[in-house]
Amino acid sequence: MTQTNRAFVLASRPDGAPTPANFRLDTAPVPDLPPGGVLLRNRWLSLDPYMRGRMSTARSYVAPVEIGEVMVGGTVSEVVSSDHPKFKAGDTVLAYGGWQDYAASDGAGLRKLDPEAAPVTTALGVLGMPGMTAYTGFLTIGQPKEGETVAVAAATGPVGSAVGQIAKIKGCRTVGIAGGGDKCRFLKEELGFDVAVDHRSPDFTKELKAACPDGIDVYFENVGGAVWDAVAPLLNDFARVPVCGLVALYNATSPAPGPDRTASLMRMVLTRRLTIRGFIVTDFAAQARDFARDMGEWLRAGRIRYREDVTEGLENAPEAFIGMLEGRNFGKALVKL
Amino acid sequence: MTQTNRAFVLASRPDGAPTPANFRLDTAPVPDLPPGGVLLRNRWLSLDPYMRGRMSTARSYVAPVEIGEVMVGGTVSEVVSSDHPKFKAGDTVLAYGGWQDYAASDGAGLRKLDPEAAPVTTALGVLGMPGMTAYTGFLTIGQPKEGETVAVAAATGPVGSAVGQIAKIKGCRTVGIAGGGDKCRFLKEELGFDVAVDHRSPDFTKELKAACPDGIDVYFENVGGAVWDAVAPLLNDFARVPVCGLVALYNATSPAPGPDRTASLMRMVLTRRLTIRGFIVTDFAAQARDFARDMGEWLRAGRIRYREDVTEGLENAPEAFIGMLEGRNFGKALVKL
Repeated sequence: MTQTNRAFVLASRPDGAPTPANFRLDTAPVPDLPPGGVLLRNRWLSLDPYMRGRMSTARSYVAPVEIGEVMVGGTVSEVVSSDHPKFKAGDTVLAYGGWQDYAASDGAGLRKLDPEAAPVTTALGVLGMPGMTAYTGFLTIGQPKEGETVAVAAATGPVGSAVGQIAKIKGCRTVGIAGGGDKCRFLKEELGFDVAVDHRSPDFTKELKAACPDGIDVYFENVGGAVWDAVAPLLNDFARVPVCGLVALYNATSPAPGPDRTASLMRMVLTRRLTIRGFIVTDFAAQARDFARDMGEWLRAGRIRYREDVTEGLENAPEAFIGMLEGRNFGKALVKL
Repeated sequence: MTQTNRAFVLASRPDGAPTPANFRLDTAPVPDLPPGGVLLRNRWLSLDPYMRGRMSTARSYVAPVEIGEVMVGGTVSEVVSSDHPKFKAGDTVLAYGGWQDYAASDGAGLRKLDPEAAPVTTALGVLGMPGMTAYTGFLTIGQPKEGETVAVAAATGPVGSAVGQIAKIKGCRTVGIAGGGDKCRFLKEELGFDVAVDHRSPDFTKELKAACPDGIDVYFENVGGAVWDAVAPLLNDFARVPVCGLVALYNATSPAPGPDRTASLMRMVLTRRLTIRGFIVTDFAAQARDFARDMGEWLRAGRIRYREDVTEGLENAPEAFIGMLEGRNFGKALVKL
């Protein structure tokens, strides 16, 4: 066991895309076991796009990480020692342990994981927050109907890949949008998407149109930007757009050049009677049980598959995170600590 | 009875705001009674913002009016002669008779009106399409809850005034937005809005903010443009925005100057979990019975009031229509033929 706790703190707020200089690896003694709580050794750190928002002070769901504070993040952690009645040393738990080797916790919000039931990393992906984001947002806001066309951006990511596969289970035609030939092949060959379109292709707009001969009934928005621009003209009357993320915009430093297309977006909403609705997974916390039941069943039945992109070593977390925001990951981004 | 039928046809498509030159008053013989149908004398013509859309070829709900065709419009009409089993000479009907003195009809879509039950013009306003637009869009998409703040644009118009009064009935705090002191006084003194804000005031944005100390939970969008810009920052988390009309944009000839604020709108949708949804009244045709029951009851009980802005003479319809698009009407715009 190391004698020190290494922790990435927010060194400075990014101006545009985060750089390694925005993170600082501090070392400190391993925290003491808190009375009534647990001491955790983090084993897996989840990297997720929402973390970009926490690095900035712009209005968002929750308060930002302060300068000098440990970067937040979901973890799969091992209980090192416990003064908590529900947990004992050796337990594996889902925690919010952050970008560090160790974390002290009062036990609130921890969930014990059964390593026999499913690989523990699924608690950070398909059976965790990203999977539930896909399930709740797609089904509740997307309201998919059999035979409809569902398009999803960032389709090899943990949210997008679940959306596409749930859409298939619901009898929809699925169009995955991803960056590069490898990801597109994976979408079709491994995840069963009906079509995959490469947003890096110079003919992306044309290819997306060709891939959606009947238009798009549900567009699950993860990215914004140029992908949205290509999707919007294809939206059918009464299309639903769950807005889950806008990763292409998170690093923007200045407003896009004109003309201002707000008015044409609103006109489109009106004439095509679109529903555009933002959400975060906690809005649908009441669906946790349904999600766990359905997703667990689909996973066991092999109807939902997932892919992980593992980076080794906490010290490499900033680079992996920066890459993820640029779409360089291929599957759920995880750091093995 | 005149021997000729005067009819306004679309002479040319407007480039920006319509002008009188876009309309031409043609005269022709009064149509013959069609076999199995009715001949109608139009008595009241409804002027509504959607007609601006029909003058252009831009993608919209329905096909545009062709050059040389009679301008479309709802009418209260008298049956002159009938070969239809359901109608007889002297009946008053709600029709889609257009901008003309007479109309021949096969009877489809006509609805007999009882002049004893309510003033017949209400069939074009509070008990007709505008009233049902308000009722269905506000209740279905707006999902108002007691104590919430509801803001509505074009609040003295037939849709906006109904939205505000229904919101009051549902226990909401109502903020009406209108142009000019007379309209604002009317909102408070006659229609019972809690606050009225004049969008022509140089301090409109500040005044609207002061009028909404708890933010806005439902914004019923009739206008777009500068009013939307002032409303958007005040929208609360989980706010609902039924998009019913965008009259401020209908005459736009060129996109607004940059920067492009599409991205900031989408970010706002995401972080505040807004629902923005367009609709037209026909989407909610299944609610016609509920609407007729509730609105009739509220009207009889004096809980819903309305105001009409009557122009005399078909020949003055274009000017009245042009004025309505600029907000010069004060109440439901009608032409008495």
